[in-house]
Amino acid sequence: MSHNLLKGKRGIVFGALNEMSIAWKVAEKAVEQGATITLSNTPMAMRMGETNALADKLKAEVIPADATIVEDLEQVFARSQEVLGGKIDFVLHSIGMSPNVRKGRDYDDLDYKFLDKTLDISAVSFHKMMQVAKKMDAIAEGGSVLALTHIAAQRTFAGYNDMADAKSLLESIGRSFGYVYGRDKGVRVNTISQSPTMTTAGAGIGGMGGFLEFAEKMSPLGNANAEECADYCIVMFSDLTRKVTMQNLFHDGGFSNMGLTIAVMDEFNANK
Amino acid sequence: MSHNLLKGKRGIVFGALNEMSIAWKVAEKAVEQGATITLSNTPMAMRMGETNALADKLKAEVIPADATIVEDLEQVFARSQEVLGGKIDFVLHSIGMSPNVRKGRDYDDLDYKFLDKTLDISAVSFHKMMQVAKKMDAIAEGGSVLALTHIAAQRTFAGYNDMADAKSLLESIGRSFGYVYGRDKGVRVNTISQSPTMTTAGAGIGGMGGFLEFAEKMSPLGNANAEECADYCIVMFSDLTRKVTMQNLFHDGGFSNMGLTIAVMDEFNANK
Amino acid sequence: MSHNLLKGKRGIVFGALNEMSIAWKVAEKAVEQGATITLSNTPMAMRMGETNALADKLKAEVIPADATIVEDLEQVFARSQEVLGGKIDFVLHSIGMSPNVRKGRDYDDLDYKFLDKTLDISAVSFHKMMQVAKKMDAIAEGGSVLALTHIAAQRTFAGYNDMADAKSLLESIGRSFGYVYGRDKGVRVNTISQSPTMTTAGAGIGGMGGFLEFAEKMSPLGNANAEECADYCIVMFSDLTRKVTMQNLFHDGGFSNMGLTIAVMDEFNANK
Amino acid sequence: MSHNLLKGKRGIVFGALNEMSIAWKVAEKAVEQGATITLSNTPMAMRMGETNALADKLKAEVIPADATIVEDLEQVFARSQEVLGGKIDFVLHSIGMSPNVRKGRDYDDLDYKFLDKTLDISAVSFHKMMQVAKKMDAIAEGGSVLALTHIAAQRTFAGYNDMADAKSLLESIGRSFGYVYGRDKGVRVNTISQSPTMTTAGAGIGGMGGFLEFAEKMSPLGNANAEECADYCIVMFSDLTRKVTMQNLFHDGGFSNMGLTIAVMDEFNANK
Repeated sequence: MSHNLLKGKRGIVFGALNEMSIAWKVAEKAVEQGATITLSNTPMAMRMGETNALADKLKAEVIPADATIVEDLEQVFARSQEVLGGKIDFVLHSIGMSPNVRKGRDYDDLDYKFLDKTLDISAVSFHKMMQVAKKMDAIAEGGSVLALTHIAAQRTFAGYNDMADAKSLLESIGRSFGYVYGRDKGVRVNTISQSPTMTTAGAGIGGMGGFLEFAEKMSPLGNANAEECADYCIVMFSDLTRKVTMQNLFHDGGFSNMGLTIAVMDEFNANK
Repeated sequence: MSHNLLKGKRGIVFGALNEMSIAWKVAEKAVEQGATITLSNTPMAMRMGETNALADKLKAEVIPADATIVEDLEQVFARSQEVLGGKIDFVLHSIGMSPNVRKGRDYDDLDYKFLDKTLDISAVSFHKMMQVAKKMDAIAEGGSVLALTHIAAQRTFAGYNDMADAKSLLESIGRSFGYVYGRDKGVRVNTISQSPTMTTAGAGIGGMGGFLEFAEKMSPLGNANAEECADYCIVMFSDLTRKVTMQNLFHDGGFSNMGLTIAVMDEFNANK
Repeated sequence: MSHNLLKGKRGIVFGALNEMSIAWKVAEKAVEQGATITLSNTPMAMRMGETNALADKLKAEVIPADATIVEDLEQVFARSQEVLGGKIDFVLHSIGMSPNVRKGRDYDDLDYKFLDKTLDISAVSFHKMMQVAKKMDAIAEGGSVLALTHIAAQRTFAGYNDMADAKSLLESIGRSFGYVYGRDKGVRVNTISQSPTMTTAGAGIGGMGGFLEFAEKMSPLGNANAEECADYCIVMFSDLTRKVTMQNLFHDGGFSNMGLTIAVMDEFNANK
Repeated sequence: MSHNLLKGKRGIVFGALNEMSIAWKVAEKAVEQGATITLSNTPMAMRMGETNALADKLKAEVIPADATIVEDLEQVFARSQEVLGGKIDFVLHSIGMSPNVRKGRDYDDLDYKFLDKTLDISAVSFHKMMQVAKKMDAIAEGGSVLALTHIAAQRTFAGYNDMADAKSLLESIGRSFGYVYGRDKGVRVNTISQSPTMTTAGAGIGGMGGFLEFAEKMSPLGNANAEECADYCIVMFSDLTRKVTMQNLFHDGGFSNMGLTIAVMDEFNANK
């Protein structure tokens, strides 16, 4: 249902691969709430995914970009302002990939070239995005920048591997840049720490199925899904949250503050 | 501006004393966003404050109650359901008072009867409110319960005194009850940790003026005011945040994650 | 093995009930490391437990006291200084009890008189202890005060009930008083957040057996036992940790920072 | 004073540049407490610093290594086991450097090649160190690995720049590897988050002098110095802390849990 929460706002959504993607839902809901947007994804992802179909549906331009390349990001911010007719009000960073996870390297057998890639793609790209935007003065006063993250940044989950470290770095970049961008331009920067979600990216994490079920039973309200996450993103882009910045916001049905539920204990004891 | 975010919802707002109160702003905005509400405050506060004026303006019934007395709370939930015509969708707890602070007792010279009162009024009342509501099954599936708190629950601020301990207890109660209420009834429970705010309650904290200025300079976006806090409460009552629970949400212009700003450093060095 | 880490130091150990108690191990190890100590426990606990046997073994005087009664605590600090011949260097608070847990009340069916008792015994007693000591100037410059706590103060564990809230309050009191006592007297105040431990108190927590096993499998190094906890207390009483204050120190084999181990996942999946 | 806390233990200390270095103090104290050690530093640092003088004094071999190069680290662990006659019991990682800080680049004007170097030197080196050690099975059961960090990993300090992000990454690596190393080999991994310290590295951080004074006044016990930090490291290497792992331990006179002291408030108001 539209509340016109983003009426008149201009946004950029990075990382919408297919309709399982959180970024995809964010794009749909942002438009539904009155925003105009552009989409960006890597050329590779655009070939694999259905970004163009989404773009057609939302009448949004797709601007291909490798988010690790400064020049590509400059192009995204330049073109988006052109197409949308002004400064940008909100940006979603939904980008993450670990070659170590993909290739099945264990955490004590990392390939360090892969690790560099994990960090560059999944975390440093967030800094690049903001540094580019700030240098171009491309984000409007009161704007909102969000990245998606996971509680593996705080606690260790077997199988999450070097993505955990990338998410810690990502969240730190959110805080560090949040200070500078808030101070100089009134732009807020936050991360949303989402329940494990069965997106194409999520599916690559080792033992994802079991982890999803564990998290479901460890969360008083159950896991949050992609659509609910998109709702939360909309709220964080709206003018109702203008003084929230430098925060990592858990969107997880309560998982992050649970130690042990009866539901997990029952499962744990079931085979005794 | 109304987004009809709370259309058709029923709420109870505890603690609206006068128009400086955060609870006052929440009441106004909740109605603006389409909710119907009742107000509750202590008989004493009702004599001192202007709750009745607010009630008239919002066409909301006031139900006097001492939030430390279970029977009074039962009356609030019973009468609210009657007046509003159904189960309650959201509740705001904006209640806090420390006799030790009022009487100028230092933290290493507490009166323990006063401390009991501080804890009972400022924290245990939150548990009583939820236990009463849950026993009466007075909150609807998907409902949202909020309490206001302060970062003194995590870090020590000279002068904040035993209210710091009360806020820690309050936040813990939010988590503990959040598990039970989420699991059994799908109700979410959160606390919002607000910038120091010059309400009537805030004004009682020792050295409030200096602290407000310090926080202003330590927050990249400046302190959040009562009106902005009310916006955030509305968001947390809406259906857009249904999987957020057991969280303590900082609404503070970035203060909570700042270590040192240039603005504070400059002030700190100004007299050198 | 003695390292003479506490040579010449004077200490008070509250809460040694029997040889399963962490406080019991702390008392033994403190003496082994060169300290002289007094013991304190409630008259009731002294009848139930074996505090006197420990006192005989360690040649330590037992000073009965109800730690919720200021006068009793004054007596403990006065008598301890007399017996030990000077100001106190370290204090252990290992005190906790919940009548709601004992009587099997659920968290959404608390008896509020019981809750008051839980908070008074398990948390406020820590404030009383320090306020009494500070007023009497009974703790030496550079002294160290410790209380034992549990991660339920941060995350919710089914069955831990109102002890969770008491532990949050206890930790907050540690921080709040830590500021004042550090600033005025150079005394440090910390809490140690220990693995679930099969002491007489621990055994009262609902589902303790299952929780112990869950924690064991969730901790890379396994649960820490009472003896290891006592070692950590000794370290925190020694001069090697003089600048550590206002901290909550997890002593738990890694539990607090784990999200999911393979060992838990395997158990969780075992019955599929 | 020696307590023989590390009697018979073998250790490696990375990063002792000169007598202001925390690592230097750790090396001295480790030997004093009965350990035998090797030292390692970069060839460049060895030319600039006085590592050889320390080595002579402690009769310790220096093994030059660039901690970002896997082969160099293999050499350190191989040679150390040879020289010391067995597996290693403790390792100190005291390594950090930011070319962006050195070259005066602001956080919103980072050079990304420099950022890669910051992360590689200050954080990824910690992973490499542990991966190398684990593959070689060079650390004994019950061993202890420590890295030094700073609260900028949690909160933003103007001028700390990309070192903040590096420290977040470092701490995450500590947790992630702590799980694996604990589970497989019983080795614990922790980080110590130290007060700002006027070492050669610390002196490079922008506005260090002002920050030191701010931290001094914000810490109830004042800033912790290098020598006190070394004491804490010794404790964490000893057998008295064998169940502490995956923790970030603040050693800072209480700074991390302070919101506002009277001393800071007074300074802040002094020029009014």
